[in-house]
Amino acid sequence: MSSGFRTFNPSQNYWNPEVYFPTSKEELDQKLILLPFAQLEYGRLSIQGRADFLQAIHHSLSKEKNNIQKSYLRESGLSDLRFETEWKRTLDTIELFENSLRSGYYMFEKTQDFPSEAISIRKIACPIGPVLVLGSSNFPLAYSTAGGDTISALAAGCCVIVKAHAMHVGTSSIVADCINEAREALNLPEGIFTHVLDDGIQLAQQLCADERIHAVGFTGSFRGGKALMDIASARKNPIPVFAEMGSANPVILLHGISPEKRKLFAEKLALSICNDAGQFCTKPGILFVQANEEGQSFIEALKSSIENSAVVPMLHPDIHRNFEHRKSEIGSIPEVKIQQSALEYKGIEGKWAIAETTMPTFLQYPNLHEEVFGPFSLIVTYQDITELTSGISILSGQLTGSVFYEEKSNFVEECIQLLSQKVGRIILNDVPTGVRVVETMQHGGPFPASSDVRFTAVGPDSLFRFQKYVSIQRKNIP
Amino acid sequence: MSSGFRTFNPSQNYWNPEVYFPTSKEELDQKLILLPFAQLEYGRLSIQGRADFLQAIHHSLSKEKNNIQKSYLRESGLSDLRFETEWKRTLDTIELFENSLRSGYYMFEKTQDFPSEAISIRKIACPIGPVLVLGSSNFPLAYSTAGGDTISALAAGCCVIVKAHAMHVGTSSIVADCINEAREALNLPEGIFTHVLDDGIQLAQQLCADERIHAVGFTGSFRGGKALMDIASARKNPIPVFAEMGSANPVILLHGISPEKRKLFAEKLALSICNDAGQFCTKPGILFVQANEEGQSFIEALKSSIENSAVVPMLHPDIHRNFEHRKSEIGSIPEVKIQQSALEYKGIEGKWAIAETTMPTFLQYPNLHEEVFGPFSLIVTYQDITELTSGISILSGQLTGSVFYEEKSNFVEECIQLLSQKVGRIILNDVPTGVRVVETMQHGGPFPASSDVRFTAVGPDSLFRFQKYVSIQRKNIP
Repeated sequence: MSSGFRTFNPSQNYWNPEVYFPTSKEELDQKLILLPFAQLEYGRLSIQGRADFLQAIHHSLSKEKNNIQKSYLRESGLSDLRFETEWKRTLDTIELFENSLRSGYYMFEKTQDFPSEAISIRKIACPIGPVLVLGSSNFPLAYSTAGGDTISALAAGCCVIVKAHAMHVGTSSIVADCINEAREALNLPEGIFTHVLDDGIQLAQQLCADERIHAVGFTGSFRGGKALMDIASARKNPIPVFAEMGSANPVILLHGISPEKRKLFAEKLALSICNDAGQFCTKPGILFVQANEEGQSFIEALKSSIENSAVVPMLHPDIHRNFEHRKSEIGSIPEVKIQQSALEYKGIEGKWAIAETTMPTFLQYPNLHEEVFGPFSLIVTYQDITELTSGISILSGQLTGSVFYEEKSNFVEECIQLLSQKVGRIILNDVPTGVRVVETMQHGGPFPASSDVRFTAVGPDSLFRFQKYVSIQRKNIP
Repeated sequence: MSSGFRTFNPSQNYWNPEVYFPTSKEELDQKLILLPFAQLEYGRLSIQGRADFLQAIHHSLSKEKNNIQKSYLRESGLSDLRFETEWKRTLDTIELFENSLRSGYYMFEKTQDFPSEAISIRKIACPIGPVLVLGSSNFPLAYSTAGGDTISALAAGCCVIVKAHAMHVGTSSIVADCINEAREALNLPEGIFTHVLDDGIQLAQQLCADERIHAVGFTGSFRGGKALMDIASARKNPIPVFAEMGSANPVILLHGISPEKRKLFAEKLALSICNDAGQFCTKPGILFVQANEEGQSFIEALKSSIENSAVVPMLHPDIHRNFEHRKSEIGSIPEVKIQQSALEYKGIEGKWAIAETTMPTFLQYPNLHEEVFGPFSLIVTYQDITELTSGISILSGQLTGSVFYEEKSNFVEECIQLLSQKVGRIILNDVPTGVRVVETMQHGGPFPASSDVRFTAVGPDSLFRFQKYVSIQRKNIP
């Protein structure tokens, strides 16, 4: 019997008073028993019916904006501005899927006739089956209960079971209620959308192993994602897991950038590193900068921008603890200089830090290649193209890779080639944060950035993660 | 040091004299070292360049038809007629991919402009990287060295490394030479196509674990496919495995079929069960027939057709041994009647067998649900729709499911619904053998029929197994 758990208010630095309890075994069984029938029913719904459901979710969420915002701010410590951005993105994503369904963006069926054999074959796209969605800590809306995974799975015709992130169960519960209100308004059966709570990993693991679950969408840590992948592949019937597990997002600064642009780029990068305490999967975490005067002037501009950036609370105490731990790990490497905000802590602020080292040291310490979640970036100076190439080559799979340059050169093209082996999205002369929810977005990357490089977690094509195909072949017998 | 191995001639019932040796560790290392560069080069080739390569493979194979045929017959025991069918299918598949590349069937890139932000994003499809292909035993051409997996991977821009099936290394080597001849004719680098030999599973396992391999295509047994899936997911960087692992291919006979059609269906099914010793992954292995006079007359018609069918050698002694073993396993269940060809063995003939039981027995013995590879089918009689539904529901994932009926009814639609949860292809009033290499084909199914229900192993869309995506986002800075 759990004693219950609470969420944390980072702005006020206290635990919110509401007590939540993990979904009990009995409750869970009652919910899971509804899944097969609900899947059958939802699978039969027309494409327009799915679009109507998304529209109804959009509508019921919109009505609850104030409540959601209040809860969001209390449970995340994020700013009003950030709420507005994420809120808009969440609603825009729902609308995008609704419109993509209505406009025929998805080719849900194809037919071919073979008259000489009196055969016709119709290939149809079908929902893969009930999808387990595990919300992220850093996007309480856009990658959570009514976020991209849930909405793309619903658009594909799949029932969804969301395990709320323990640190924003309040927000998640309001959003879940909105989805259920929309479901009821359209007379869709219970079981199409299920919301469960847990303060640990047990429930997620149990659901991932449950044969009634047919796919998993996850956004979070490498450890969490890999654990789910292992459970999913050890099942009697293995299922696909789409895990988006973060990334260090290397940034390459090439030589020959004019002083004005150097300053512009430094300012943009500083903001991208520090904004909302750098708690983005696409935050630039490694900066490859040439070891010369030009590079040095960029570093100085970057530091002076960062020094002026606001220090804000992190999402919750665990994330803060991990961030502090990672900074001290990196600071303990003798060949790494680290500099951080000197502000006094009032709570769980994410104090920015910038580390600096040379390429040989970078190549030597694998720990330096890994993501540091928070307002941190590691500057790695390179002597020449050979060193830079080794630095890129040693990296594991990443969500993004950025290149800053002034004049187009063959080497820019080479960087693109090199990065296309390593990352899902290459950004030229811009920062990696700010993922657009559009057709051309690839949010995912080679393992360990994500579990399956063939899919994206963002944009209308993210639906393909949750879709299977069936051919129906008819022989006409006279 | 291996003592070498030989292939078997099923028609003559002897081991062919040629001795082959597994690829040595040194040879393998020399071949693998070429992969990264070859992948880079091949990945840069234009779509037209890839199409030209496929065309050149078609051309060089065509010139060697006689040699390939001779070797094929000696190593498989299959008939001239079967060779011609498989040969045509192999060449047609190459042509289909060539044409699909040239005609723009694949959308290899999409661009979106966001003028207000001075951003454009181009999303491109890229080869996933070098693909390991493990040829099947039952299709020495169409699912082997220049078969669907190899050709779709090459069409996707991936280097391919084929481990020849041990029982047709001679045929495989000629085909590999043709591919390499085509590669040389176009001045493409070595390493784009690699051919290796082994008489066991060691080399396949080693390659599946090698970090230079980025995906696997496999056609064969459940045990083999699942072993590869486990190796692939235990790697430092897990990779996708597309394993097509066979199936029992249930067939449902509904009531109300006229005597003429009953006879027609029985003849077609008999041929589908026995043709080429039933060595097809889509062979109908379980027949659900109603327990009444109509069903009985169908069973009699089926048996009399099967009794007249030719008994031909199986592909090799192991397959023959397994077939005999499975027949005796099934025959040992007291509630199962089994009847088989009374012909005397001259070698490794696949003697047809038909087993018969009731639904309650079928539900009781899981062994009856599994594929029997060879000219065998299990008739399961059902009393009513409830029994039939339990029979379908107890099955694991299948490649195909067929329904025979005369009048369309609601229950036909219900069967389609039920089967669409279980199978990749539903066939109405026809046999499941005879997979068409077309856009609308879904060859694959829920696990364990295949490893990933989201992909097909046949048709132009099988390329998507071996493709990843990269977005290139450009910011225009004035």
